[in-house]
Amino acid sequence: MELAVPNAMRSNTSTDALELLVAATQVEMEKVNALILARADSHVELVPELARYLIEAGGKRLRPMLTLAASAVFESDSVHQIKFAAAVEFMHNATLLHDDVVDESDMRRGKPAARKVWGNQASVLVGDFLLGQAFMMMVETGELRALEVLSHAAAKIAEGEVFQLAKAGDLDATTHDYAQVVVAKTATLFEAATTVGAMAANAHGDQIEALRLYGLELGWAFQLADDILDYGGVSGNMGKNTGDDLREGKMTLPVILALELAAPEERAMIISALGNPEAGEDDVAEIVRIFERHGTLAAALAEAEQHAQAAKSALGGLPDSATRNLLADVADFCVARAY
Amino acid sequence: MELAVPNAMRSNTSTDALELLVAATQVEMEKVNALILARADSHVELVPELARYLIEAGGKRLRPMLTLAASAVFESDSVHQIKFAAAVEFMHNATLLHDDVVDESDMRRGKPAARKVWGNQASVLVGDFLLGQAFMMMVETGELRALEVLSHAAAKIAEGEVFQLAKAGDLDATTHDYAQVVVAKTATLFEAATTVGAMAANAHGDQIEALRLYGLELGWAFQLADDILDYGGVSGNMGKNTGDDLREGKMTLPVILALELAAPEERAMIISALGNPEAGEDDVAEIVRIFERHGTLAAALAEAEQHAQAAKSALGGLPDSATRNLLADVADFCVARAY
Repeated sequence: MELAVPNAMRSNTSTDALELLVAATQVEMEKVNALILARADSHVELVPELARYLIEAGGKRLRPMLTLAASAVFESDSVHQIKFAAAVEFMHNATLLHDDVVDESDMRRGKPAARKVWGNQASVLVGDFLLGQAFMMMVETGELRALEVLSHAAAKIAEGEVFQLAKAGDLDATTHDYAQVVVAKTATLFEAATTVGAMAANAHGDQIEALRLYGLELGWAFQLADDILDYGGVSGNMGKNTGDDLREGKMTLPVILALELAAPEERAMIISALGNPEAGEDDVAEIVRIFERHGTLAAALAEAEQHAQAAKSALGGLPDSATRNLLADVADFCVARAY
Repeated sequence: MELAVPNAMRSNTSTDALELLVAATQVEMEKVNALILARADSHVELVPELARYLIEAGGKRLRPMLTLAASAVFESDSVHQIKFAAAVEFMHNATLLHDDVVDESDMRRGKPAARKVWGNQASVLVGDFLLGQAFMMMVETGELRALEVLSHAAAKIAEGEVFQLAKAGDLDATTHDYAQVVVAKTATLFEAATTVGAMAANAHGDQIEALRLYGLELGWAFQLADDILDYGGVSGNMGKNTGDDLREGKMTLPVILALELAAPEERAMIISALGNPEAGEDDVAEIVRIFERHGTLAAALAEAEQHAQAAKSALGGLPDSATRNLLADVADFCVARAY
């Protein structure tokens, strides 16, 4: 199905591409959202209560929108993309519930994390429930290839989270380690989201491959931008969550590069703040100044731009359509956030 | 494939039926075990380390043996039962890892629980990894019906665990509540194990249904027996883990019935011990004496026997074979444990 993206609606700058994506997928997203609420239901009251608390907090729902958009690049009367999109969002939410337990996070989507309201125990179990429901929806479509993509993604994401856990605060973490974490924690689900979208539309093998690559590279760009934003972005806008990755000891690209380039006293300063939950605003600002001296936020941004470019290039062989052009703009937007 | 169970090997009493099941499934279980080890592998070292710690601690591997035996009731040259059996065991192990986090358990299979060695975080994530791998193996078989059974089971198990969590220490818990917990936490995976076994052998619809019902009823009998054993069995053999359910506030049948039947001062005694992690051996012995006065362990055993009988009856319409007869003996054995 072609989405309603008249060319007049296309963005001049890429900065509102996300709003355009929301508008373009709105009709189908209403079906996805209804399905999400229905499948988060259970006779065990605590299950929908907790699930809906997280789901209704919103979030961008970027992943299911990507599934719908990837499907909409092609002429097709398939309806499977609705269930695929809901399954992708369930997998994402299951991951968030478990991540918050693993990271001992207090906040999620601007509200106290579910684990702070209902406890770690219920968060683990409701995450498991959502994962089971995601597979149920996939099975109902009968699309074995898409099931393979999502079950593989589920294992890979968990594996990557274990790797990130093992690497937390590891001062010898390399850019190669970082790449593994980014692929597993973000790029894999973006990749799965666009792949199953293309599969729902019965796209050809090379078209599925193009959208798989687009999703993977977009996920890369998105996570790099997120990791830059966690330090206030390249322009250094400190917000209330700035420095969370630092306090959690997460070895993201800006910090890995800085540890390589920093002078001994700068390195000592980074090390003292890294993984220190007490690191305050001033400490974070100090670390950001070190990053700026060595250009590590800018280097991470350049890397994000490369991935966004690769995402756009992947779209090259696809049928020319408003949706394809919108996906290209989304790639630019994902990086533009980090300025 | 018919299993190697010569009639001469069949048990006179049902007490060694489990050993016979082990012997009968040995050749195929070696393949299952090899697959389990291979699929628990990962380039992220912590993953196989933790997974193998749990897997190699053993456990009875009753569930995968049931899958193999259910398949072996029929003449078939299918090999899918190997992957199904490994997937069932992975789902079981994923559940155990998450359960231990949820229950804050210290021990599992006679060793410190994985969460005590590697922490709750890694236990949650490796559980997720095993679940993803379980689905991968299922997808590889291309058997959508079996995938439906297992994904439905995954959601139902998690839902049931949430229900049990919500009911922990709830003095108004009913036998109906207990039934829900038993079905979700145990009977559902037994049911799934035998169902997918029959599916692997391309059994007919009514044969699959017979083995589904067998698994469900067997799971019931098994869990009831476990819950009786947690209080030392009907004969009251106190062991080192006796009373764990009491200390965790688990509303199992013996305690639910006792709360209904007990005199006010007995009721007060049960209430003071229930959910109290400090409850000692003497407290547990006192509670067991209350159970004995009101016959609640014996009542639970009678219920277990009914379910074992229902499991055996379900086998009635299946082809007469040594494996079918062995499955009947396994049902008796599951209850006999609780004497």
